[in-house]
Amino acid sequence: MRSLIEEERLKYKPHLPRCLRDVSALEVVEGEPTEALGNREKIKELLSKTYGQPVVQFKEGATKTHAALRVGVVLSGGQAAGGHNVISGLFDALKKMHPDCRLFGFLGGPSGIVENQYIELTEGVLADYRNTGGFDLIGSGRTKIETPEQLESSRKNVDALNLNGLVIVGGDDSNTNAAILAEYFLSHDSHTHVVGVPKTIDGDLKNVHVETSFGFDTACKTYAEMIGNIERDALSAKKYYHFIKLMGRSASHITLECALQTHPNVTLIGEEAAAKKMTLQEITNQITDVICERAKLGKNYGVVLIPEGLIEFVPEMKQLIHELNTLMAKHVEDAVGNLSEKARETFSFLPKEIGDQLLLDRDPHGNVQVSHISTEQLLIHTVKKALQARSDYKGKFTPVNHFFGYEGRSCFPSNFDADYCYSLGFAAAVLIDSGHTGYMSVVHKLSQPVEEWEVGGIPITMLMNMEERKGKLKAVIQKALVDLEGDPFKLFALHRDSWSIEDHYRFPGPIQLFASASISNESTFTLKLEQHVEVCI
Amino acid sequence: MRSLIEEERLKYKPHLPRCLRDVSALEVVEGEPTEALGNREKIKELLSKTYGQPVVQFKEGATKTHAALRVGVVLSGGQAAGGHNVISGLFDALKKMHPDCRLFGFLGGPSGIVENQYIELTEGVLADYRNTGGFDLIGSGRTKIETPEQLESSRKNVDALNLNGLVIVGGDDSNTNAAILAEYFLSHDSHTHVVGVPKTIDGDLKNVHVETSFGFDTACKTYAEMIGNIERDALSAKKYYHFIKLMGRSASHITLECALQTHPNVTLIGEEAAAKKMTLQEITNQITDVICERAKLGKNYGVVLIPEGLIEFVPEMKQLIHELNTLMAKHVEDAVGNLSEKARETFSFLPKEIGDQLLLDRDPHGNVQVSHISTEQLLIHTVKKALQARSDYKGKFTPVNHFFGYEGRSCFPSNFDADYCYSLGFAAAVLIDSGHTGYMSVVHKLSQPVEEWEVGGIPITMLMNMEERKGKLKAVIQKALVDLEGDPFKLFALHRDSWSIEDHYRFPGPIQLFASASISNESTFTLKLEQHVEVCI
Repeated sequence: MRSLIEEERLKYKPHLPRCLRDVSALEVVEGEPTEALGNREKIKELLSKTYGQPVVQFKEGATKTHAALRVGVVLSGGQAAGGHNVISGLFDALKKMHPDCRLFGFLGGPSGIVENQYIELTEGVLADYRNTGGFDLIGSGRTKIETPEQLESSRKNVDALNLNGLVIVGGDDSNTNAAILAEYFLSHDSHTHVVGVPKTIDGDLKNVHVETSFGFDTACKTYAEMIGNIERDALSAKKYYHFIKLMGRSASHITLECALQTHPNVTLIGEEAAAKKMTLQEITNQITDVICERAKLGKNYGVVLIPEGLIEFVPEMKQLIHELNTLMAKHVEDAVGNLSEKARETFSFLPKEIGDQLLLDRDPHGNVQVSHISTEQLLIHTVKKALQARSDYKGKFTPVNHFFGYEGRSCFPSNFDADYCYSLGFAAAVLIDSGHTGYMSVVHKLSQPVEEWEVGGIPITMLMNMEERKGKLKAVIQKALVDLEGDPFKLFALHRDSWSIEDHYRFPGPIQLFASASISNESTFTLKLEQHVEVCI
Repeated sequence: MRSLIEEERLKYKPHLPRCLRDVSALEVVEGEPTEALGNREKIKELLSKTYGQPVVQFKEGATKTHAALRVGVVLSGGQAAGGHNVISGLFDALKKMHPDCRLFGFLGGPSGIVENQYIELTEGVLADYRNTGGFDLIGSGRTKIETPEQLESSRKNVDALNLNGLVIVGGDDSNTNAAILAEYFLSHDSHTHVVGVPKTIDGDLKNVHVETSFGFDTACKTYAEMIGNIERDALSAKKYYHFIKLMGRSASHITLECALQTHPNVTLIGEEAAAKKMTLQEITNQITDVICERAKLGKNYGVVLIPEGLIEFVPEMKQLIHELNTLMAKHVEDAVGNLSEKARETFSFLPKEIGDQLLLDRDPHGNVQVSHISTEQLLIHTVKKALQARSDYKGKFTPVNHFFGYEGRSCFPSNFDADYCYSLGFAAAVLIDSGHTGYMSVVHKLSQPVEEWEVGGIPITMLMNMEERKGKLKAVIQKALVDLEGDPFKLFALHRDSWSIEDHYRFPGPIQLFASASISNESTFTLKLEQHVEVCI
């Protein structure tokens, strides 16, 4: 039996922006030609057929007749709340444009395209997945379609299915892949148009055109619920320091948003650590200072937020990891003994378990798995040592560690993500119907009420730059890191000192799916601040 | 600034059972004299003045005049959602009975009574805490008032405050303490009556009179939200085995309720492990069998629920811990070398980190800290080893460990806990007003709509038995373990085989505080099943 909430969510009708109310009567307005972010000549050379296309926006227009399209959809990369809403939005828009449209879901991520694994998505199939979390309807995967064989086999398969369009739901890499597929199909006489949809809880697929990636809202709210609960517990029990690591890959967007939502005592931001070239010792001291300061006030409790990607931003750790990778690649037996003096010093600063983890836990290419490093436990260890060295510290330090990640990727989407994703699916359908390829569907004015949202598409090439990846220069979508000059960070920086000593914890509570709009449709602080909407934190 | 949910919760008006609607017009109906659960003579001797009092029930009656009472309240032990509602219920009931009633909150738990630390709780103070989580209004603590000095100092302090009543909100131990204080006050010419309120997320303060302790509902629903999210993620990513340990001290009530709510692949129940005298190897095999079976179906993912108290129920671990404690108490240097053969065998089965933890991580009395043992990591380790030994296993085992505990103790109380606690507070006020002492406030028919709830009090002595605690026979309230013949366990046992292989995950979603009653007022499966209410799981 389904839970009551699942039953009710299956019946939820996502709200649509005014411009999408009648999808059979849309005008697709094209703007000026566009350019890539950088290395324009090179990107133009690589993606000559799809380069420079205009931004498009959908406006209410006159009723048109539409063809019966055949469209494929695939989910790529990690789960993000709202994936099923993109698919149901796509489906509903196609059916509204022409009842004979058909939608196919490739299974298990992009490998499903290469290996021709798919199912047809019908109303009957979708009815069990509307407004639910997870990607279990068709699964997901991390295959990149890169080799000539993979590209050609994908082309054959979409052609065999006679697809007018292929919708790729994914993060920056997957949307880059969408641009490459669009170019390839166009250059190889396939009539399958490719449209990307911006997904990732990490929030790093973001720029002036993509206001937020879907899943970020739900993930942050879910983590913030737990953080708030733990803060209230810390404030009540008054005896634990909670070190909470938050998922989010490299960028610290999730941690920043959660900090704005919950006002913890210490929040580390990877991008700031990098900008200030902070050492592990300095980060440790930053936390230790707050603990000592609070101990003087009789407060031996608190909450520390740590972004998953922190460690990669610390120059000395970066160096250590680089040296270890090089030595291990050469199969040097005593890797630690052969480190540079500086790196050996860093290594010896680490607790034994973390050192062992660095030496033993390697990915299939033999590289250190940075994401597996328990940064929260590492910092507990270094803080404990630092506190012992402080003669004026008389407090009691009882740390508890947490990692929130998987809990926030496959939740029921918040109303924001449910509505946003449904619109993204609609937009993808309109882009395919209007003959666009190499585009990403986008929604603007997301901090406004749903009716006011503006919807359209942008050519993926305009988000691109050339970057070194695994030693090779590649055309990629630039990852957005936390902007230390941006309003979300600035507001956080303004308040964090008072949050560190006084207790200004904020308790967001669980996501409300059925409450009044003011409670259940709120967007993130990050989004509001980036759009200069006034907020009270 | 408060979160929107906090703002709205402060305004929430808890629902009251019909019999409490007009608290100034109640009839307090007394039943027959009662007896303790066992060792009646001994308990009667220990608590002669409060022993054998009748159960009382509140019925609608004629309007009476009430005195202006002075009442103290204290929170004892771990946080549970709804503590602030008990206090506001108590306050509101007192003020309804007589506007000049005054309420004092002792600070930091029972030590606040001993040390005379208190604040007055007024409407202005309470306004910021209504329907919020945590115990931060007055704090909590784990001091037991046991020694003659503590008892006498408590008496002096409540008398100095001229209290008519003292309300102790706590678990089994705290309510035992309430009975002892009631007896002491009565025998020492204090007119302060003592009333207990049954609190604990663990669900082990439960019997035919106490249908559930407050906080259990909210904690289970919060953990179940996360477990469901992780299940949906496991089902989507299809590559992780999540080992989730759940708080709940000895008893496995929380784990059982969460299993009924989420249908995981494996659920361990401590009481069953004890009844079947399972070894660690057998528990490991139980999990390993499911993993192998699923691998044959191509499923290399799943969710395993582990109760915090499991390890204490495994006879061989109990034996090992007992031997280690004895040896360490004697300061034997090579404790491991001096273990019995059987215990040494158990020790060598443990991974190194857990072994080290057993040897090093000791409480102030030098005892092994069972609750600190990472059972989830222990089982990941033993399962990994067991899988390596299975030649027919061809799957891939990627485990992820979680521990949910602090997240569920201080949340905004669910509507069930908010209303239940408010009624418990009302009941405590009525018990004090009607001159009862050594009582616990109780609410019956909790699986029915709030209006139908029945409210009253039971003498704490009737829940008591004599048990050995730290080598001494003491009068205590018996802890309720999971009843393997009870309906909740039987329903779970009926379904668990199909849950283990097929994926019948259930996704409860976040607690809804503002939705329609059918969604937001549901009680736990445990409570419904124990009251023979039909459920669909």
